[in-house]
Amino acid sequence: SFFAPPFSLLGQGALQRLGNVVSESGAKRCLVVSQTKHLRDEDEKDVLKRLCKELFDAGTDAFIFSDVELNATTENVAAALLMAYEYDVDSIISAGGGSAHDVAKAVRALYRNPEQDAVQELVGVDEIAAGWIPAVPHFAVSTCMGACSALTRLAVITDPLHQETLEIVDWRITPSVSCDDTLLMLEQPREIIAAAGVESLAHACEAFLSNASTPVTDANALHAIRLLSSYLRAAVTSTPKDTKALDMINYGMFLAGVSFNSAGLGLSHAIANALCAKYINLLSSELLAVMLPHVLEFYGEQSEEMNDDAAELFVDLAEAMGCPKTSSPASAVKCVVQSVARLVSDVELPQTLSEVNARQ
Amino acid sequence: SFFAPPFSLLGQGALQRLGNVVSESGAKRCLVVSQTKHLRDEDEKDVLKRLCKELFDAGTDAFIFSDVELNATTENVAAALLMAYEYDVDSIISAGGGSAHDVAKAVRALYRNPEQDAVQELVGVDEIAAGWIPAVPHFAVSTCMGACSALTRLAVITDPLHQETLEIVDWRITPSVSCDDTLLMLEQPREIIAAAGVESLAHACEAFLSNASTPVTDANALHAIRLLSSYLRAAVTSTPKDTKALDMINYGMFLAGVSFNSAGLGLSHAIANALCAKYINLLSSELLAVMLPHVLEFYGEQSEEMNDDAAELFVDLAEAMGCPKTSSPASAVKCVVQSVARLVSDVELPQTLSEVNARQ
Repeated sequence: SFFAPPFSLLGQGALQRLGNVVSESGAKRCLVVSQTKHLRDEDEKDVLKRLCKELFDAGTDAFIFSDVELNATTENVAAALLMAYEYDVDSIISAGGGSAHDVAKAVRALYRNPEQDAVQELVGVDEIAAGWIPAVPHFAVSTCMGACSALTRLAVITDPLHQETLEIVDWRITPSVSCDDTLLMLEQPREIIAAAGVESLAHACEAFLSNASTPVTDANALHAIRLLSSYLRAAVTSTPKDTKALDMINYGMFLAGVSFNSAGLGLSHAIANALCAKYINLLSSELLAVMLPHVLEFYGEQSEEMNDDAAELFVDLAEAMGCPKTSSPASAVKCVVQSVARLVSDVELPQTLSEVNARQ
Repeated sequence: SFFAPPFSLLGQGALQRLGNVVSESGAKRCLVVSQTKHLRDEDEKDVLKRLCKELFDAGTDAFIFSDVELNATTENVAAALLMAYEYDVDSIISAGGGSAHDVAKAVRALYRNPEQDAVQELVGVDEIAAGWIPAVPHFAVSTCMGACSALTRLAVITDPLHQETLEIVDWRITPSVSCDDTLLMLEQPREIIAAAGVESLAHACEAFLSNASTPVTDANALHAIRLLSSYLRAAVTSTPKDTKALDMINYGMFLAGVSFNSAGLGLSHAIANALCAKYINLLSSELLAVMLPHVLEFYGEQSEEMNDDAAELFVDLAEAMGCPKTSSPASAVKCVVQSVARLVSDVELPQTLSEVNARQ
């Protein structure tokens, strides 16, 4: 199976093109879900202002819910849902990283849904009430890099009362339109671009090596790997910023996200998630940078012992990373591991767990 | 921009998995749109029987509209729409090639749409009434190979009264779920598989070379070209039929379709369409097989005169077709043209216009 947003706006100026799409959708009263209250950065708040200008020009009223926590909570969903009913909205926009999109997805799944009224009832795979179609369209605007929630069928919501993490997986909560504007990336600090780029490389590699991969997810993952391997150095290190390289990184992140949305993830995410749960002040994307070369080496060793098909995957992976053409899986594994380690080092991300610790 | 079905079922046994999806969607009364009345082939009718069994097992009643013409007409849409209202359906399934899907798309856009009630009002790009959301889900099952309508935002309907071809382009008529089952391809004659494979190769090449291509459409087009170039010979010539090769061709066709859905098509389709409009008994897919090598040669000559970026595209195209690695655009063009011509000849499709004529 393959899951994707039905309509994606990508590249430079995507945010501006969103105005037209919102207008065509006939949105008159829009719930805007964001984390603005918690942002210290004026640039981030500025994106929300620009978004509201696009809505205004499209003839749409915006009702702003800006209280989403850094980790989205069931309370956030309940409060935003109340606001949606109060203002009788006909559309939802989320602007931000994963948490804003996740709250918007849960609100959309509950809004005007006569059979379900709490996040807990949606938990699991395809547990939205049978036959229910989302009542309003959802436009998801990414302002944080690499947070692929704008284009996936997943929402992760924390229940602070029961100290639980609730996961909703349902193709019907895939946003109607995702929007990834490269111009917003221009404003990000270099270390954020580096971390998001390597995080996406991990998404793509793990999706490609996953047991659930298909040729459709492979197409997306391999091209993501090609773009991220070729352009991440220039995107991070060039002065002034290299707009073409950033554009390619933006597309690479999209392709990586679409690919793991269907094929799933693997060990480096499992390890990073486990460590993050235990040591709350570690950064998941930095952990991924540390883990990825080791995990790829482990997968490589496993696959050589397993069978030819699994080993063959590393030949394709090596080619996508720009390694010299080879038909030997062993040398492909070696080149893949070295290429990733070199990239992590070149974009100045940590290479050992002690470095991650030292930065906290 | 990038457009795709939100949920695609692909590969061997996809039709069986559709039962679950229909059941989760809560469909109780389904309009089934097909061309069965016009099919001479019992195998095709058999697919409809299997589909109805899936619906029955899912607890869904099927109301079958089997009158779609070989070229879908406005009269077909009006009659099917009447049936949808008469039986108060809550879902639509189309099973067949382009025409069945196109009728279903138009019916879905009009059904319970208070502002529009005829195909003519939908013609153009995104002309469905602002703010209107499809009232029911649409499941599109491909039974003909290479007819990518099951996964696009396009519907082409003929108006026999005014002798016009009406084109609807709207992301909201992309089917909710597309279903391409390789097992249905096993039953197709070899010459149909060959023609559909080369048609998809033309889709992918033209989308990749299109001015509207993006790295996302490139990812899909290049992998489609890789799969179709590697597996079409085995899919057409192996005895007994090579299930793995057919599976890869099925995925290749999907990727090619998704890629042109966003990036558009080019010259070989323009020429084939013009010739088909004039000489009604020519087969579009056979014309494409004749035109494709010449059109690629023409594009190659143009791109060499234009700029480095355009010429560079042929280096990637050549690599996807399995040519020896080269950095010379001129030798890449030469290898691409020869590879396509050889493939057309190996799968025994016509290579000259007179051969196409001779077959009629």
